[in-house]
Amino acid sequence: MTDNLVIAGRTFRSRLMIGTGKYPDLETMRAAHRASGAEVVTVAVRRVNLADRSAGSLMDYLDLDRMLILPNTAACYTAEEAIRTARLAREILDTPWIKLEVIGDEKTLFPDNAGLIEATRVLAKEGFIVLPYFNDDLVAARRLIDAGAAAIMPLAAPIGSGLGIQNFTTLRILREMITDVPIIVDAGVGTASDVAIAMEMGMDGVLLNTAVATAQNPPLMAAAMKHAIEAGRMAYLAGRMPRRLYASASSPLDGLIGSRP
Amino acid sequence: MTDNLVIAGRTFRSRLMIGTGKYPDLETMRAAHRASGAEVVTVAVRRVNLADRSAGSLMDYLDLDRMLILPNTAACYTAEEAIRTARLAREILDTPWIKLEVIGDEKTLFPDNAGLIEATRVLAKEGFIVLPYFNDDLVAARRLIDAGAAAIMPLAAPIGSGLGIQNFTTLRILREMITDVPIIVDAGVGTASDVAIAMEMGMDGVLLNTAVATAQNPPLMAAAMKHAIEAGRMAYLAGRMPRRLYASASSPLDGLIGSRP
Amino acid sequence: MTDNLVIAGRTFRSRLMIGTGKYPDLETMRAAHRASGAEVVTVAVRRVNLADRSAGSLMDYLDLDRMLILPNTAACYTAEEAIRTARLAREILDTPWIKLEVIGDEKTLFPDNAGLIEATRVLAKEGFIVLPYFNDDLVAARRLIDAGAAAIMPLAAPIGSGLGIQNFTTLRILREMITDVPIIVDAGVGTASDVAIAMEMGMDGVLLNTAVATAQNPPLMAAAMKHAIEAGRMAYLAGRMPRRLYASASSPLDGLIGSRP
Amino acid sequence: MTDNLVIAGRTFRSRLMIGTGKYPDLETMRAAHRASGAEVVTVAVRRVNLADRSAGSLMDYLDLDRMLILPNTAACYTAEEAIRTARLAREILDTPWIKLEVIGDEKTLFPDNAGLIEATRVLAKEGFIVLPYFNDDLVAARRLIDAGAAAIMPLAAPIGSGLGIQNFTTLRILREMITDVPIIVDAGVGTASDVAIAMEMGMDGVLLNTAVATAQNPPLMAAAMKHAIEAGRMAYLAGRMPRRLYASASSPLDGLIGSRP
Repeated sequence: MTDNLVIAGRTFRSRLMIGTGKYPDLETMRAAHRASGAEVVTVAVRRVNLADRSAGSLMDYLDLDRMLILPNTAACYTAEEAIRTARLAREILDTPWIKLEVIGDEKTLFPDNAGLIEATRVLAKEGFIVLPYFNDDLVAARRLIDAGAAAIMPLAAPIGSGLGIQNFTTLRILREMITDVPIIVDAGVGTASDVAIAMEMGMDGVLLNTAVATAQNPPLMAAAMKHAIEAGRMAYLAGRMPRRLYASASSPLDGLIGSRP
Repeated sequence: MTDNLVIAGRTFRSRLMIGTGKYPDLETMRAAHRASGAEVVTVAVRRVNLADRSAGSLMDYLDLDRMLILPNTAACYTAEEAIRTARLAREILDTPWIKLEVIGDEKTLFPDNAGLIEATRVLAKEGFIVLPYFNDDLVAARRLIDAGAAAIMPLAAPIGSGLGIQNFTTLRILREMITDVPIIVDAGVGTASDVAIAMEMGMDGVLLNTAVATAQNPPLMAAAMKHAIEAGRMAYLAGRMPRRLYASASSPLDGLIGSRP
Repeated sequence: MTDNLVIAGRTFRSRLMIGTGKYPDLETMRAAHRASGAEVVTVAVRRVNLADRSAGSLMDYLDLDRMLILPNTAACYTAEEAIRTARLAREILDTPWIKLEVIGDEKTLFPDNAGLIEATRVLAKEGFIVLPYFNDDLVAARRLIDAGAAAIMPLAAPIGSGLGIQNFTTLRILREMITDVPIIVDAGVGTASDVAIAMEMGMDGVLLNTAVATAQNPPLMAAAMKHAIEAGRMAYLAGRMPRRLYASASSPLDGLIGSRP
Repeated sequence: MTDNLVIAGRTFRSRLMIGTGKYPDLETMRAAHRASGAEVVTVAVRRVNLADRSAGSLMDYLDLDRMLILPNTAACYTAEEAIRTARLAREILDTPWIKLEVIGDEKTLFPDNAGLIEATRVLAKEGFIVLPYFNDDLVAARRLIDAGAAAIMPLAAPIGSGLGIQNFTTLRILREMITDVPIIVDAGVGTASDVAIAMEMGMDGVLLNTAVATAQNPPLMAAAMKHAIEAGRMAYLAGRMPRRLYASASSPLDGLIGSRP
C-alpha cells in the first residue's frame, strides 16, 4: 500500500516529525531519531548554531541523508522576529522549509495566531514553504492557508505538557473543513496512544519532541512512536467498527462527543 | 530486547490474541490473523465444529503452526455448561487451555463473575489452564486467582461495543494490586489506540475480535493492532514524560484521574 | 411538581443521602446536614455507639425528626459480620433499614458482591429493608434484587476517592435494564457536578459523605450538593437538547460514548 | 454570604445569563427566564426588532425590571458590521452594553478572534461595555482585555452544539492567567452539569440559550440551570476534597488532566 504524506510536492514515507531539544545527550538523540523512522527533523534556529557542522555539534548528529531539516522559529515573539529568523535559516541551510512559530505567551508558549498569519503571508510570498504551529482555531486555519501555508499545525495541548489531544471537537471540525493542505498535529503529545489517536482522527501527521526526548528511554519511546503512527494511520484507513453501548444494542453510537471520534 | 508474555509457563512473542467470529469470510480471517502477528487464536467451542478439519472448515483456515488455539466457552450461561464445554474442547483439541466465559446477561453479554469463580475452581483442579473473561472487579479477580486462574481477563467495555477502556480507575487498581498472574484486557476494543492505551497502562496483553473482524478492511486493521500493541508496550517500558498543565508549570500533574494513566 | 423518591414504600422529598464520618467536628456535621436538605443519614454501626444519646454524642447531633437514620455495616468483611451488625442495629435503633456493606478489600474498600448477595438474602427474609452498596455489575445487580434488595447502590468510584462517576457505560446499562427498584449512586462523589451528572443519567438518588465532610467548608459544600441534586434531577426530567458537532451539523450525536449520556 | 458578579461596576446576584432565540413560543420563553433567575438577557439585534415594544413583540415578553438587556451582534461577519450593529443597539435601547460577536464561519459559527479584537477596540473607545464571545485562546484574551473588554466570554464548545466544555486545559489556563476581568463561559452548554462544571472551575458566570430553549421542557431546564449555577459556585467556594485513586492511596491526585479540575 502506498500511503505517503505529501507537503508542497515533497513526498514523505513517514508521517512522524521529530525534534532536537531536551535530549540528555546527542548520542541518545541520534539513536531516537533512527528508531523513530522520522524523515523530518526540526531545529530551533535561535537555539542551535546551524552553521556549526563540526564534529560534536548538534548538526553533526543529524542524519541529513535520511531526514529533511525543518528549521523552526521557536522563541520568536513577533512576526518580525519570526520572519527574520526564517530568512536567516534559509541563508544558512539553503532551504525554503520553515516551521513557523510566533509565541504569544512566555509561560504557556501558546502561539500568537495573528502574528502567524502575518508572518506566513510575508514568508510565503518570498517562496518559503511555511508550516505554522498555531492554536486550534478554524477561522485562523483558513487565514493561514489563504496566506500561503503549505500545511497547518494545530496544537494538541500546550508545548511540553504531554497532555495529548485536548479538544477533539475543534480538531474534528478542522479535519472536516480543511482538505486542501495537510494537517500535522504539533505539540502536547505525551505518549504513543496520543499519536495513534491523532492519526485515527484522520490527521496527516504528527510532530513531537518532548515526549521522546524526556522519556526515560528516548530511543525506545521513539520506536513506540513509529509503531503508533503506523497503528493510527492503518486503523484510520481500515475503517473502524461502529460504537454501540453493547453488541446487541439497537442503534450504533456513531458520534463521538467530547471524545475521540 | 526480549520482552515476552508468559502464561502458565508458555512464552508468547506477541501480546495480542485474536478471535475467529464475525469475519466476512474465512480467507479474510486468515489474512487478518497473519497481519496481526497474534500467536493465540480463540474459537467458540459451541459455535465451531472443532472436529471438522476438512478443507474449507474454519479449523482449516487457522495457522496452528504459528498460533496456539484457545478454545472458549462463549454462549455458556452457567458454570456447569462452561465446565462441560471446556472438557469437550480438551477432548477434541487435546489442549488444557481454555478461555472461560460464563455469560450472565444475554443482551450485554456481561460475565457472571460468581459462575466464573466456580468453574475456574473445578477446571483448574482438573489441570486446565484457565483464562477467565470477567467483569472488572478486584475482589473477583483475587478469587479467580485463588481458584487457579492462569491469567485474568477483565473487560474494557461490553463485548462487541467497540467503546475502548471504560473504567481506567478499576484497571489501574487491578494492575497495581495484581502482579502474580498476567492481566489480558478482553472485550470492548474498538480501534488501535484502545490497544495502545491498555498496554501503556501496563497490561500484559489484549484479546480482541470484533474490532478487526468488522472493520471495513480487516487485514489492515489487524496490522494496525499489531503496531498498536508494540507501540503501547514500548511506550510503557520507555517510561513516559510527566504531564504538566504547560511546560513551565511548577508541578507535574502526575496522577491521571478518570482518564488514562 | 411532585417528584419524590420512594424506597420500600417510604417517600423522600430529597434524593440526597448523607453520612456522618470524617467531619472536623459534630457542630459542622449538623450544619452540613441541615444545609444538604438530606432526609436520610447513614451511620456506621461498628464505629458509632448508637446507644449513646447523651449530650455531645454523635446521635445527639442528628436531627432525627427530619432525617431517617440508615445504619450501615461499614467495616464488615464477611456476610456473617454484616448480618450480625445489621441485627444489632435493628435492636438498638428499632429500624428495619440497613445500608449493607460487605467489604472485599481493605485498601480500596471495594465491595464483595458475592458476600452482599448472600447477606441480602438472609436479611431480606428477616424483614430488613436492604440497600446494598456494590460494585457496578449488572449480573450482581439482578441477583441483589432477586435476593430482596429494596434499592441498589452501585459505586461511582472507590469510596473516598472523590473521582466522580468512572464507568458511564455500566451505569447507563444498569439504568436501562433495572427499573423495578431505585438506583442510588453511592461512593466516589467528589464535588457538586458529580451529583448533577448522576441525576442527569436518570439515577434515583445519590449517597455521599467524604465530599462534604472533607471539603474546606462542609456546610457550603452540602448546600452545593442540595442544589446539584435538584439541578441534575430537573435537567433529567426537562429532557436535554441533542448533542451536535456544531449547530448546523446534519446529524445529532445522540449517543454518549464513554462519557456522560 | 454575599457573592455577587460585578461587570463594569454593575452588580448581579445571579451568575447566569440567558438568551431569547429558538424558544417554541414567547410565553415559554418568559416562563423560562423567570425560572432561570437570570438578571441578564441577550437579544440578537439583527434578528429582533428592538424598537417594537407592542403587545406580543419579543421585547414585550422581557422582564426588563429584573433583567439587564444585553444586545448582541449575532450574524455579524466583520468587525465593521458588528460595530455598526452595536451602535444601532445603543441608539434604540439606550444602553452601552454589548455582547460582541464577529462570526468567522457560517457553518460552525466559530468566532473571528481578530475581528473581535478590532471591534472591541473601537467600541470600548466609544464608551461601550464590551463582552466579546471568542474562541478560547489566551493570547487573544489578553488582546481583548487590552482593547477594553469589560469581561471575556470564551466558548465551551460550538454554539448550539450542547457538547459542554471541550478544552479544560485552555479554560484552566485562562482562569489561572486572567484575573482582571470576569470570565463568562458562553456557548456549547447542553445541560445542567455543564454549567456546574464551568462554575467549579472558577469561572465567573455562564451564558446559555439553546440548552434551555430547545429542551423538552424549557422552564424546567431553566430551573435546573439556576440550581446548577448555585451548585457549581458554592462547590468552588467550598473547596473540594482532593482526588485519590482510592481513599487510602498514599498520594492525592491533585491535578486534573484533560478533564475537569
